[in-house]
This record gives sequence, structure tokens and C-alpha cells, in this order.
Amino acid sequence: MAKVVILGAGLMGTAISVPLADNGHSVHLVGTHLDGDIIEEIHETRLHPRLRTRVADSVTPYTCDRLAEALQDADLVVLGVNSRGIRWAAEKLGPLLPPEVPVLAVTKGLDGDGQRLRILPDVFRAGLPAQSGERVPLAAIGGPSIAGELAARRHTCVVFTGWDQSLLDQLAALLRTPYYHIWTSTDVIGVEVAVALKNVYALAVGLVGGFLEKEGQADNGAVMHNLAAAIFAQGLAEIAYMVDYMGGQPRSVYTLPGAGDQYVTSMGGRNGRMGRLLGLGLPYSQAKARYMPEDTIEGAELAMAIGPTVEALIERGELDGAALPLLRTMIRIVCRDAPAEIPWDEFFAA
Amino acid sequence: MAKVVILGAGLMGTAISVPLADNGHSVHLVGTHLDGDIIEEIHETRLHPRLRTRVADSVTPYTCDRLAEALQDADLVVLGVNSRGIRWAAEKLGPLLPPEVPVLAVTKGLDGDGQRLRILPDVFRAGLPAQSGERVPLAAIGGPSIAGELAARRHTCVVFTGWDQSLLDQLAALLRTPYYHIWTSTDVIGVEVAVALKNVYALAVGLVGGFLEKEGQADNGAVMHNLAAAIFAQGLAEIAYMVDYMGGQPRSVYTLPGAGDQYVTSMGGRNGRMGRLLGLGLPYSQAKARYMPEDTIEGAELAMAIGPTVEALIERGELDGAALPLLRTMIRIVCRDAPAEIPWDEFFAA
Repeated sequence: MAKVVILGAGLMGTAISVPLADNGHSVHLVGTHLDGDIIEEIHETRLHPRLRTRVADSVTPYTCDRLAEALQDADLVVLGVNSRGIRWAAEKLGPLLPPEVPVLAVTKGLDGDGQRLRILPDVFRAGLPAQSGERVPLAAIGGPSIAGELAARRHTCVVFTGWDQSLLDQLAALLRTPYYHIWTSTDVIGVEVAVALKNVYALAVGLVGGFLEKEGQADNGAVMHNLAAAIFAQGLAEIAYMVDYMGGQPRSVYTLPGAGDQYVTSMGGRNGRMGRLLGLGLPYSQAKARYMPEDTIEGAELAMAIGPTVEALIERGELDGAALPLLRTMIRIVCRDAPAEIPWDEFFAA
Repeated sequence: MAKVVILGAGLMGTAISVPLADNGHSVHLVGTHLDGDIIEEIHETRLHPRLRTRVADSVTPYTCDRLAEALQDADLVVLGVNSRGIRWAAEKLGPLLPPEVPVLAVTKGLDGDGQRLRILPDVFRAGLPAQSGERVPLAAIGGPSIAGELAARRHTCVVFTGWDQSLLDQLAALLRTPYYHIWTSTDVIGVEVAVALKNVYALAVGLVGGFLEKEGQADNGAVMHNLAAAIFAQGLAEIAYMVDYMGGQPRSVYTLPGAGDQYVTSMGGRNGRMGRLLGLGLPYSQAKARYMPEDTIEGAELAMAIGPTVEALIERGELDGAALPLLRTMIRIVCRDAPAEIPWDEFFAA
């Protein structure tokens, strides 16, 4: 049985401890500097307050200052931080991470530096000390996985992606359970781009909730599924374009990382709640400050992380703006408080 | 302004009269032999009983026996029958259809004769008298379009598909409105295969409703979106395989006909209601007879229409069975009353 360290005691970081514990592994769950309350609560009650799930006895909670201790003899490190925490995690882990210990990231996102877009495994690697950065065996999890459902042992299907097939097989064997179904893919770019972008398109699908609330049901009971479906399809088409641009494979678009993850993320969650507020007519900055000040809205985070870079790449002619009308709209909504208006005429143009 | 005849006064046949009437066209809405009550009710009240929508004054209802009269001077015939009515429609229209009058089909489905699979436009054409069959300009509508929403003038995005781009442009110009957004595609096979198959995968997503009802919410409130999303993704992957096998284009998979239409169909409707019954554990034949005897369940119709042919093609090595585990499962459920069990281990294998 392996000794696994999870860094980040948020929803997904903690949920991943469930299949690990069920498989008999010993887990050290290390909260980030923002997870102090969670770690304390798990210590006292064994319950994760937001996941509303009992943490297994084989999971030992640690506060961030004890990371070095928690890492001793680790066979695997799971990166459970969100996209904003990826650099912090690299900085913290860098000096402590023993060579050859693989890192498996649940983090989803893309990074833009104004010049180019990067997938998060590359950002993480770049944040490690030069020598270990090159050597650390890296993998990531993509696919439709609501943390609360995984924690409740509901059937969940995901893809482990990385450059080294034997590492992927080894990791899949560690985590696979009768409810946690794992496939592997060496299309790291395709998987990472799809699972990152789906957040911003789920935010777009979420707009429809607000539109519907404003307009109300029609006399015949009609809601707005047609509209949501069109936005969903435009989103997936834009993911296909971006995966291709970044050098990924089409298969990642129409399987779990693209279609599956975009579907599950469109079913609700924080992207959906923010989407509704935007669809009701609130500017993003107001909606965020007034109603969701403490929440990480991954779709909005992504728009902010890559917005200026995407626009710069379009400006330079490297990206085709006509292929990305919905992404550009969402970037304007999030970064510049633009009104939530669907650019129908620009859909499916490229 | 054009004179348009719609054959079939069901939900979609009637809904399509809304953009037509809004664009000032004169519409003759001809019920099939099964639509007598609907036509009578429209005559008396101007309301379509199931669509719960007022039919415009420029829409004249006709019973089926007056088809010849209704067809006089028609500029366009819209085929509003369901997949089971396509041969009947060809038989009825065959002797009456003036040459050069285009036919635009809303019908979705595939046909199997035990030897090969055919798209419905080909089935319709084959049912016409030899001479006119070859000549009739044919097009079809695909994409996420719940009839009640179109009738309520909610934003709806569709693809008109056909072999002749100028015909598609002409038809799109006739029907396009500020709420009915139309794109065109000459990938007839891709569009038709995607919009047909999506029904059986929406039926599969619908199973989850029954599974959830049986198991109930988890203690932490978790439902089963992960599971639905995985089924959704496997469905889209199988659509991609079948589109490729039949000779269609990948783009149709990840835009409106595939991803969009599968999304909207998974949001509810009759496939969803039947899926729930199957997920609860009822054999298909019982569920159909007891709870939905009068309903056309397009996903089940499709499974029955193509099931034996798909199995024969796999047997002959023309189709790769490993690429279609979910389709085969649904065929067994519908055609042989097999229990609703998800073949996880076979997913994403090919």
C-alpha cells in the first residue's frame, strides 16, 4: 500500500482521498494556508465542512506548516490546489519534493503571460527548482468529476493524463475502484486544454439561467434548453479549435475531458451560479463582490488568466478570432464588465 | 412570400410554422392520418393541443385527405412526420409532389435493413416514384430544437443540411428569424447520423434519473451528474465513430448536430422519461406498455430500427463492436428487455 500526500484540502483534494483510502493507502491530507479551518474541523470531527463527508481514519490531516513532515516517505503527491494555487504549490513543494516521487494534479486551468498560453503542468514544472522540475514525473486528472459525488462514491469516470504511459498505468492502479473508473491518455495538451476551457463555457451556459429568470417561462411552459444547447455546442467547437491550436488530439474533445467535463460543469456549481447573476444583467465585478466574494469561479478565473493573452494572440494573427466568439465574449464580460449578450451571428463561423 | 406546405401536425411540424408565419409566408399545415384531432382543434380554437401554442392566422390547417389541394402551387414542402412516418410520407407525396419543389425534413432517424444503415433522406427519396425521387431537391434540419421552445420564439440554433448549397441558402433565407438561427452544412451524413443517434444516447443519459431515484441522494447531497456526464461523453464518442464509419465529417459531431442536439435531448423529454423507467428497473416492454403506450420514444425507435443491422455489421466485421458498447447496451435493453446496466469496462476502449 502506498503513502500518498494530498496538498490542498479543498473539495477535490479531499474527495480524492476517498478512493485512495478505500484502496488501503495511507493518506496525508495537507491543507494550504487557506485551509486552516478545514484541517482543524477534520481533526476535531473527521468531517470536511464543505464536502459534508466523513474523512477516513487512514487520512491524517496536516496543516501547511507541517508539509515537510507529511511528505516523508511519500510514494505519490496529489496536487489538490486550484488554478490560483499552482505557483504557490510549486514553490512550497520545490525544496521538499524528493526526486522521482510522482505528482498527480487535479488542478484545472490555463496560464497566459501575454505572449503565449501554457497548460498548468508546464506552469507547475516551471515553478520547481530547475533540476527537480525537469525530473519530476507529472500527471493530471481530467474529466467529469464533481467532488461531492466522488466523495459519496458515486460512479465517476476520469482520464489520467501524462507523458509516460507506465506512470499513468501505475497511478490508475493505485486509485481505481469499482466507482472510480480511470482511463489514461498521453494527450496531455488535449486533456488539459479541454478541462480548463470547459469552465468558461459552463459559465456561458450558466447565463441562460439568468436569461430565463428575467424573461420567465413562456405561456406554453417553454424554457431555454435550445439556447443552452447552442452555447454548449459553440463552446465545444471552440474547445476543438483551441485543442488543435495548442497541439492536442480531437479525441480529447469528444470524450471525457471535453464533452463529459463540459456537460457536468454545465449542470450547476459555482460557474452556473455566477452565470445566472451575469445573465440577470449584473456586471461581473458587482456580481462577484456582492454575491460571491469568497468563491473561486473557475470560469472567470480562466477568463482573467488567459484573456489578455488570447486577445494578443488574435491581434498577432496566431489565433483566429472568428473561431472564438464565445470565449471573447466571456473574456469581455469577466474582464471588462461587458453586458451578457450572445454573439449569435458569429457562432460556428470558423 | 412563399407558399409552404407542412406535412405532419405534430410538435415539430407545427412549431416550424412559427418562423414561417413570422416571415410572412403562407402555410398549409396538413395533419397525417394520426393528426385528425389536432387539425380539428386548430380549426376550432387555433390552438395546438400539445404544443399549447396559438397557430398563426396565415397557417391553414388541412386534414390528410386534402393533401393534393393543400399542395397546389407549393414552393416548399416541410416534412414534419416522425421517423416511423417517413415511408408513409414518401408514398403519399410521391404521386402529388410537383417536380422541383424542394422538401425540407425535420424527421430524425436512421434506417437499417439488416444489411446496411441508411440516413432518412435516402429512405424518403427511395420511397418516391423513381423519376421524381432522383430529382426532388432535398434538405433536412438538425440541431438542438425543442419544438415548444421554437414555438415560443425562444432562441434556437439549427443546421440545414443538404447536398446543394444554393438550395440550403435559399431555404435558410425563407426560415431565418431573429430567434431562429440557421447555419448550413453539406455534410448530410454527419448531420443526419448525429441527430439520429443522439436520441438513443439521450435515452441512456435518462437512465441516470432512475438510478438516482432508486439509490436516493447521498448523505452529502450528491446526485449523479458525474455518471450522466460519462454516459454523455461515451455517447458522443460513439457518434463520432459512427459518423466516421458512415462517411460524415467530425465537425458535425462537436457542433450543433452532435454535441448540441445530444445536450438538449438529454435535458428531458420522452427519451428522458423512458430512460428513468428503465433506470428504475422496468424492462422496456413493460415500461412502454404500462406507462408510455401512446408515446413515440425516438431513442427506442432508433434502437429498434437499427439494432439488428448494427449487430449484423459487427458480426460481419464492418463495424467495430468495441467502439459501440453503449449503443449495443441500449439495443439489448430496448430490443431484448435486458436490464439497464452500464458497461463501464467497455467504455472509451476504441
